Amino acid sequence: MLKKQLFSPGPTPVPERVLLAMAGPVIHHRDPAYEELFEEVREGLKYVFQTKNEVLLFASSGTGAMEGAVCNTLSLGDEALVVRGGKFGERWGEICEVYGVDFTAIDVPWGEAVDPVLIERALDANPSIRAVFVQAIETSTGVMHPIKEIADIVNGRDDTILVVDAISALGVSDLPMDKWGLDVVVSGSQKAFMLPPGLSFVALSDKAWDFAERSTLPKYYFNFKKELASAQKNQSQFTPAISLVVGLHESLKMLKEEGLENVFKRHQKLALATREAVKALGLELLAQNAPSNALTAIKVPAGIDGKKLKSDFEERFGLIVAGGQSQLKGKIIRIAHLGYFQQMDIIQAVSSLELLLRDMGYPVELGRGIRAAEEVLGSA
Amino acid sequence: MLKKQLFSPGPTPVPERVLLAMAGPVIHHRDPAYEELFEEVREGLKYVFQTKNEVLLFASSGTGAMEGAVCNTLSLGDEALVVRGGKFGERWGEICEVYGVDFTAIDVPWGEAVDPVLIERALDANPSIRAVFVQAIETSTGVMHPIKEIADIVNGRDDTILVVDAISALGVSDLPMDKWGLDVVVSGSQKAFMLPPGLSFVALSDKAWDFAERSTLPKYYFNFKKELASAQKNQSQFTPAISLVVGLHESLKMLKEEGLENVFKRHQKLALATREAVKALGLELLAQNAPSNALTAIKVPAGIDGKKLKSDFEERFGLIVAGGQSQLKGKIIRIAHLGYFQQMDIIQAVSSLELLLRDMGYPVELGRGIRAAEEVLGSA
Repeated sequence: MLKKQLFSPGPTPVPERVLLAMAGPVIHHRDPAYEELFEEVREGLKYVFQTKNEVLLFASSGTGAMEGAVCNTLSLGDEALVVRGGKFGERWGEICEVYGVDFTAIDVPWGEAVDPVLIERALDANPSIRAVFVQAIETSTGVMHPIKEIADIVNGRDDTILVVDAISALGVSDLPMDKWGLDVVVSGSQKAFMLPPGLSFVALSDKAWDFAERSTLPKYYFNFKKELASAQKNQSQFTPAISLVVGLHESLKMLKEEGLENVFKRHQKLALATREAVKALGLELLAQNAPSNALTAIKVPAGIDGKKLKSDFEERFGLIVAGGQSQLKGKIIRIAHLGYFQQMDIIQAVSSLELLLRDMGYPVELGRGIRAAEEVLGSA
Repeated sequence: MLKKQLFSPGPTPVPERVLLAMAGPVIHHRDPAYEELFEEVREGLKYVFQTKNEVLLFASSGTGAMEGAVCNTLSLGDEALVVRGGKFGERWGEICEVYGVDFTAIDVPWGEAVDPVLIERALDANPSIRAVFVQAIETSTGVMHPIKEIADIVNGRDDTILVVDAISALGVSDLPMDKWGLDVVVSGSQKAFMLPPGLSFVALSDKAWDFAERSTLPKYYFNFKKELASAQKNQSQFTPAISLVVGLHESLKMLKEEGLENVFKRHQKLALATREAVKALGLELLAQNAPSNALTAIKVPAGIDGKKLKSDFEERFGLIVAGGQSQLKGKIIRIAHLGYFQQMDIIQAVSSLELLLRDMGYPVELGRGIRAAEEVLGSA
């Protein structure tokens, strides 16, 4: 018997009450019952995005809204700056390329955060750059980029917007869109929103909406201006993913009940406990200087088979963790503490790690990681 | 007490066993359990599409796959022919416009099917037309267009493909993709696939894949070639809408258990019973010459308030039917018999119609429509 549990940074576990809400008969998206629910969903999304502006919903994975963020704000031949410090940073570049947006890349070693000074220099060197694309949390490495500092740099420039992929960051760490002046914030359902994948979200600042007015790249399904007009009538441009929106209504209620600040604190504590446990076991974090609170990426020690370590997590203990992607394949293990996670989930992950590593021949003093985790969890 | 029941042509009712399948814990899309399920889903989709080629899945509404059908097969300045006989025909034109595809429209009065001769003439007159866009069933009017006849015309031309929006048609009427030589077939989850909205499907003929090789329009999320490469590895390019795919696995099982031929016969019988009942009540069908088996559009009789008729269906009997869209607003009532529908569902709809019309002052002999429906339902 194995209770399979998601410890992957997307999909993440979906609370039972959300699953049950989605299991009800499908309602019609023009029905008053749905319209009332959708109004509350729109308000709830503004709460999580910390914005007064409308948050748009699409039936798509987060990548759809990332594509929309490019083709709704820019035009052919526009210049952009892309921070590439992992698989998702590369995705911004790929999307720009498809749309004929000329981009300069700041290539950051995978596992490190971007130095904001590099962004400032790049913008100073080329004032034609219209948009800076970055991840808040780069899910492939577990790094948190310094979004506040980057926003402070971009905000001084009238002709440049900051576009943030916050798919793994929203609802994890404080990322107040309006207060910090983030221009485009993208997110997705299968992370801290505690839903199955299939919904993406995006909000634009007034400055970004001005960009949208002038953008000439083609778009239809992900047309932000038209979707905004529909949202302002409390509708969707196309048939929405009704059951997921019903689930979102429930998970937003949970986030409100807990309160955003407590949600952030919970993630911080779980992440810190995980990191301290990992270090106590003599393991190395991939994201040494800027680890995110969404997931912890651990370097697989020399002599240990990373692929086997990942699959043993599942086969022996039912824990579905993630391995590395692209250049990090086999080299890291990623343990998520993102969304529907609580203290004893971390204990499960750390204990599994201790037992698995010991049995693979890595020197482990059993309980040492757990003790470090408990010290964090037990603190005020 | 009201048992709310969907009689709308999307969303349609979702079977309890599908709802329950989707209510289980979310599984990871790289997990062997998901991979096994996804392999069966891919096979099941080929069965319903009646094609040997791969059927691609996207997390999006059907419109997303329609957009993909344009931007994956054509290039800037290409010419196209669009059949516009309703709201969804117009959508093909809108998408072409966004992408700079020059299109000629064949405007068909809403409620009528296109005459294939008009398509033949248009293609003869302009051999540069690269693609013909049409609906199999135009959901806004309930009309079924003559797809087989149109395919016979397009198939003779090497430089032209036929692109069929079969969102409301697949799993309703026989539409054998390979046998008829349809080049692109698009569908969606919330119709005969008996799922909530949020998934779109598309399959391409070998000829259409050749077009995809040459297409230069920008695409990223809906990139068919890249999605095909992923599907051939039994994966998805981006995080799939896992819970909906799990539901699809269950609903495809149901379609297989019943057998496609029986599914078509069931829809035909239910549709015929509805139409005969409507006529027996002295009402007029909107789609007089080419009514589809997915839904029946009924003209609201003079002197009757169409909006009130629609809402009374729901408020008095719990039946959620659809009204008219755009130019047909208030003028028609659309009753679906599409997907998870059986004989007594039709009896409910017809009986509600009789009672509502009588109470609104339309002369009705109670039971007359029901008798006509029963005669169809009771026949072999």
